[in-house]
Formats: sequence, C-alpha cells, structure tokens
Amino acid sequence: MIIYSEGEKASNHKSKIECPESVKAGEDFELRVYVEGHPNKVEHSIRWIEVYFEEEGRDFNPVMLARMAFSEFASPDVRLKVKLEKSGKIIALAYCNKHGLWESEKSISVS
Amino acid sequence: MIIYSEGEKASNHKSKIECPESVKAGEDFELRVYVEGHPNKVEHSIRWIEVYFEEEGRDFNPVMLARMAFSEFASPDVRLKVKLEKSGKIIALAYCNKHGLWESEKSISVS
Amino acid sequence: MIIYSEGEKASNHKSKIECPESVKAGEDFELRVYVEGHPNKVEHSIRWIEVYFEEEGRDFNPVMLARMAFSEFASPDVRLKVKLEKSGKIIALAYCNKHGLWESEKSISVS
Amino acid sequence: MIIYSEGEKASNHKSKIECPESVKAGEDFELRVYVEGHPNKVEHSIRWIEVYFEEEGRDFNPVMLARMAFSEFASPDVRLKVKLEKSGKIIALAYCNKHGLWESEKSISVS
Repeated sequence: MIIYSEGEKASNHKSKIECPESVKAGEDFELRVYVEGHPNKVEHSIRWIEVYFEEEGRDFNPVMLARMAFSEFASPDVRLKVKLEKSGKIIALAYCNKHGLWESEKSISVS
Repeated sequence: MIIYSEGEKASNHKSKIECPESVKAGEDFELRVYVEGHPNKVEHSIRWIEVYFEEEGRDFNPVMLARMAFSEFASPDVRLKVKLEKSGKIIALAYCNKHGLWESEKSISVS
Repeated sequence: MIIYSEGEKASNHKSKIECPESVKAGEDFELRVYVEGHPNKVEHSIRWIEVYFEEEGRDFNPVMLARMAFSEFASPDVRLKVKLEKSGKIIALAYCNKHGLWESEKSISVS
Repeated sequence: MIIYSEGEKASNHKSKIECPESVKAGEDFELRVYVEGHPNKVEHSIRWIEVYFEEEGRDFNPVMLARMAFSEFASPDVRLKVKLEKSGKIIALAYCNKHGLWESEKSISVS
C-alpha cells in the first residue's frame, strides 16, 4: 500500500510525535500526536490518526496503541496516556481524505 | 438502547469531562475525557470513548466531535483540541466490553 | 443523549436489520444492516453504523458486535457473519453527520 | 511500518477480497472482504479490516472505502456495497492483536 513519509505535502500531513526519549517500563507517560497546519473542513481534513508500536524483539509487529477519528470540530491533535514494556518505535499513521496515508515515527527507549 | 449513567459501576465507567465552563466561539480549547480506575486488560477494558455535542438550537443533535479506541497499552484518557460555535452539552460515551455503555455530560457556554 | 427512532427523517436514517427470526446458539448467521435512500456525499452521509446486542438475562448490556465506518465510496449497507448464545435484541445505531443518531432494533430468538 | 503480506501466518491473516474483475463506473457492486480460519476470541482475534482503493492516475492514493471493527461475536467477514469511478487496486488491511498488520490486494477494472 502507498504510504507517504516525505514529499511536498509532508509538513502538514505527517504526524508530529512528542514523548520522552526514555521512559520506565510499565509506567504511564504522555504521548502527543498531532498534524499541524492542515485544513479541517468536512470536505478535506485529517480524518483519523492511528498509533502503533514496533517493539524490539517482538515476533510480530506492530501492536496498535490507539486510534482517534476526528470530525471538523476536533483538531487532529491528541494527548494520550501510554505505557510500554520494551524499547521500540512509535509509529503514527494519519489519513487525509484527499491526500492519502502519511507515516511518521519516533524511537523510544524503555528501561 | 441501554445506556447507563448511574449505579454501582458508574464511578469507574463514566467518563470525566474536563473543559472550561465557557469558551469563545471558534477558538480551540482543551477537552479532556477520561475514565478513571478501570482495569485495562485485553479481556476487560474501556474499549473506546466517543465524544458528542448537543448544540443549543440545532435542528438535529448531536454532532460527533471525536472517537478514540484504546488497546491495553493506552489508558482511556485523552486530551483533545476542540472548537465550538454555540453553547450546548458535551456528551461522552464510554464502552466497556463487560459492562456496556456509560454516558456522562457537561454543559459548556460559548460566546 | 438524543437518539432518534422516529419522525420525519426516520425512513432514510434508521438502519434496516435483516436476520433470521431464530437461530441456533453458537452458529454463524448472516446479519444485514443498512440505511436506504440516504445521500452519500462527503458533506452529508451516514458516516458509520454500530451494531449492539442486548442479551436476555445479561447483567450489563449491551455488547458491541461490530462497527462499520463508510466513506462516500461505500454505501451504509453491510452483511456480517454473527453468532449469539442467547436470545435478545439486535440494535443498530447509525450516525448522519447532519441529522444525528438513529436507532433501530430487531428481536432474535436463540435456541 | 511493518505490514506483512506473506509468510507462515499469511493464510489465516491476509484478507481474501472477492469482487467482480470488472465493473461499471459509478455502479454499486458487492465487495466481500474476509479472513478465514483465524481464532476469534477476546484475547486473540482479527480486530478490524480497513479497505482502501488505489485509483489509477490519482495524484495521491489511497482513498479509504470502509473500516470494520469486530468483536468476538462477529467474524471478520463482511460484504460491502461499493462504487468506483476508475480502475485500480482494492487493498485490505487486517489487524490481528497478536500478529500485526496484513495486507492483500486485488485489481479491478472500471469502465
């Protein structure tokens, strides 16, 4: 499947991922995921963001952390409370109804 | 449809809704919606929270603001960025796979 | 929460529920759920249908069976494969982004 | 993001896609998408299937057709009513909570 991660439209389609660089295993931390600068109209918007995790050493990846669907009344900008057991990569997938799927990622160290 | 809003299990099934009591029309504000004290295991958890708005004077209500689905890695606790045009009631609907649907609400004044 | 089940707009907003009147416990049957005669445009459509079940004698109802979200390329018309253990009521909840939430139900006997 | 399309677990994780090989532009056709032979328990199941379309000649692909989330009462087997305007590829993405994301595809000719 075509999933974009760079190009002309990356800056207002790829999710920004904000979280600590390292966290403790099994302890809640805040994970912010958001798309900036995108229109938010019923005919053109970021419809949803899915957040996955690829855990180091796991047999099959990824696991899904959460999925947020937005109407035009809510910006694609969400703060979640997440906990992890092992280090890995957080991956955000955002869908724009005009410009397809956009992926971004951020490594996180769990100890 | 059966939707609970009180009873023995209300305290750890109903969403808490946190937002300003009054906001400006068309301006983003933070809306936190969360369920506290509930197990979060694959076999028993708050699977999702839907957030609706009943706008005063609207012909047909509600409109959906956002929907969040959680795995056992993410708590049912989310902060959204929302904007509204008129006063009304924010309604959160949380689903527990063992204990059904739970509704809570909070009025908000928009000026 | 306001959920409509009758009125002027019921005919093209309430889901039709088609399934056998009685089924065997634990055996798959086909469940069709659909909304007929509604526009399907990006600015006005049936965005999703959720299907719940209220099981007779269950302590807390309902359980969720499935949830389908549609874009303007897919009609709100779906055939599912479902199995149940006890008699009860199938409930469909459809959301129109202009006209809110619409509920319909159908009893089913399980033996 | 890791998305599997082959390997040991492909046969009971990849969606089968059933539809006509060619359809008329703008006319409804039945699209069946299903995963066969997978456990369907609360602790291990196909949680959802998303259906996308990569349209030939479109600037940005894909568009989302529909998304179905299943509980343990509904099999990951759904028949949709879809219409398309141009030829392309239907893509199904299925998520197993233990074994990750699985992709399959089928070309369809639209005239």
